[in-house]
Amino acid sequence: MNERIAWAREGRRARITLQAGPLNVLGIADIRALTAAIRESESCTVVSIEAAGERAFCAGVEVGDHVPEKAPEMLAAFEEMARAFLSASPAIVCAANAPAMGGGFELLLLADLALCSTRAFFSLPEVQLAALPPIACALLPRAIGTQRAFDAILTGRKIDAQSALAWGLVGSVLAPEDLSATTEALCARLLGFSAVAVRACKRAIRFDDLSLAMHAYRDELLPSRDGAEGIAAFLEKRSPVWAHTLSKGDEYR
Amino acid sequence: MNERIAWAREGRRARITLQAGPLNVLGIADIRALTAAIRESESCTVVSIEAAGERAFCAGVEVGDHVPEKAPEMLAAFEEMARAFLSASPAIVCAANAPAMGGGFELLLLADLALCSTRAFFSLPEVQLAALPPIACALLPRAIGTQRAFDAILTGRKIDAQSALAWGLVGSVLAPEDLSATTEALCARLLGFSAVAVRACKRAIRFDDLSLAMHAYRDELLPSRDGAEGIAAFLEKRSPVWAHTLSKGDEYR
Amino acid sequence: MNERIAWAREGRRARITLQAGPLNVLGIADIRALTAAIRESESCTVVSIEAAGERAFCAGVEVGDHVPEKAPEMLAAFEEMARAFLSASPAIVCAANAPAMGGGFELLLLADLALCSTRAFFSLPEVQLAALPPIACALLPRAIGTQRAFDAILTGRKIDAQSALAWGLVGSVLAPEDLSATTEALCARLLGFSAVAVRACKRAIRFDDLSLAMHAYRDELLPSRDGAEGIAAFLEKRSPVWAHTLSKGDEYR
Repeated sequence: MNERIAWAREGRRARITLQAGPLNVLGIADIRALTAAIRESESCTVVSIEAAGERAFCAGVEVGDHVPEKAPEMLAAFEEMARAFLSASPAIVCAANAPAMGGGFELLLLADLALCSTRAFFSLPEVQLAALPPIACALLPRAIGTQRAFDAILTGRKIDAQSALAWGLVGSVLAPEDLSATTEALCARLLGFSAVAVRACKRAIRFDDLSLAMHAYRDELLPSRDGAEGIAAFLEKRSPVWAHTLSKGDEYR
Repeated sequence: MNERIAWAREGRRARITLQAGPLNVLGIADIRALTAAIRESESCTVVSIEAAGERAFCAGVEVGDHVPEKAPEMLAAFEEMARAFLSASPAIVCAANAPAMGGGFELLLLADLALCSTRAFFSLPEVQLAALPPIACALLPRAIGTQRAFDAILTGRKIDAQSALAWGLVGSVLAPEDLSATTEALCARLLGFSAVAVRACKRAIRFDDLSLAMHAYRDELLPSRDGAEGIAAFLEKRSPVWAHTLSKGDEYR
Repeated sequence: MNERIAWAREGRRARITLQAGPLNVLGIADIRALTAAIRESESCTVVSIEAAGERAFCAGVEVGDHVPEKAPEMLAAFEEMARAFLSASPAIVCAANAPAMGGGFELLLLADLALCSTRAFFSLPEVQLAALPPIACALLPRAIGTQRAFDAILTGRKIDAQSALAWGLVGSVLAPEDLSATTEALCARLLGFSAVAVRACKRAIRFDDLSLAMHAYRDELLPSRDGAEGIAAFLEKRSPVWAHTLSKGDEYR
């Protein structure tokens, strides 16, 4: 999307790479590039987010963009990015090879699946600067429980990789040299699924409501080609052939 | 309720036993039988759900009932079952002696209290068949946190018994030979409580709102005979004698 | 606030000490005193809650206040206390040096940050008396997950200090002789932050909504003096000087 936020696509797999300097600090243009990259990945099954460099997965949003004259524009872009992530169709896999701080930690919270290396830790230093991490305030309590979320946000203390695993922030902690291969294996697994099914599962979870989850199955997934194909293939003891499209035959984007 | 979904009642304890073949795969009639069994248990204090056989606690809903012609009927029955469980008065105790997959895992999520043996694991393979687990989508994030729920639902990966304990899906993991006795002890403990109090506690939790929880205490439990008896017995240093009924003297069902 | 609920303030730090008898059992007047103490602390950055004695941090609300003639008044006071805690501006730090039962456990749940000593355990014995813990019913599921909350509330079983740590109820478990010093260190850390920022973070978390969290940043924190000062100080590589007040120059209370 720009030279600092690389985006590449191969088949139904998109790949976002943060390469925004040694700490991967994001400016407003980078936030917009991330938003564009997620939108550009809409017809994929999986999109991964990784970072170049070993010092930080992402040290958050440029502090200079938090001054009163710039912050409203930055926050508007940040909220738009959050909504793009939360409504995206592909499974978003975030692999943090190094510390994720502030907005970098929030990026990981916006992903559906997260992994990290033993080099990673997670922190929200905003309160120390009289700022606040809005995405973490909204999402962290449901990820790790209210008390732990208050602790992380109000004290700014570091969550190490093992605590992140124990608390469910990441699904695996890996040696730095193994992170990439494990991320690829996870993405490969997801690529074996129907994009329509992945999208419907994600929507059903985000709805946070039983009726709406039922609706996502009955009215979105079930009438799709893949919804019929997956069951038929199982009953016929053969591998499914996914269309990855809604029943009308159109890509859903 | 039928020969595959056994139901028995002794005093204020009901007992549901899945005996629906070696994997306890549920058909639409079985789902309806489970719904009926929970409703039939309404005036009990406790209802337990166990399974015959050692291969699977429940391997979910018949795949053949997921084809487009049958799925809407199956889903309607499944949603009705979920609502019957979530609004039931007795404490629902689920003891999984073996793996619980798909709808079988969702059955455990609908229980109030769950235990399992070391032989159990839990998985949601739906996405692999371009299906989705609607009850898990709605309930799992609040049980184990959003990130772990996304992982379980989007990847279909197995959660072993120890992880289920560490994540709070089950309250205890037991040797297979000890599961039944521990389940009985838990049910016996619950049977010592007032059915009115158990019901009010359950409602107060499900409301997910402080005002409504206060209301459940003030307007439902407090005016009941048992609400007065429990406090009086404590103050008089004697054992309470429960009526298990609302103040009007009627069974609440 | 009274001789049983001590309150003291030093600068932006308030300190509440329960000294209501050997078990710190709370009467209706004590509940009101706690409410008043939290309100009196409104312009502080931190308020801590500790207890005198070693037998119980707080054994809950007087059982005699649960009889039908008194319970409505007690519950009204208890709900008002809960709302005062949940809407308070300062960070509330609860340090349980000994067991917290019933309303005592609920007091800890109302805090933003909690610590305990190895002498502590937590339990909700209400159901045994045909009562229910309304604050725990509303807050515990989001703190430790729904299944664990049902278990604690429906069975009344004890949660030991290590489980409380593993489940995220408390952030640290300390040797009894170390609890006080660690609590002081935590409070000292929080006192280094802007009261306006602490308040905004707390509000943003409680809103449980991304738009409202963004609003808390953009419309409350950012226009404040401290919101500008924190960023400016960071950029100028100097220590911030907090006003602790909203932009109009008024204390926000």
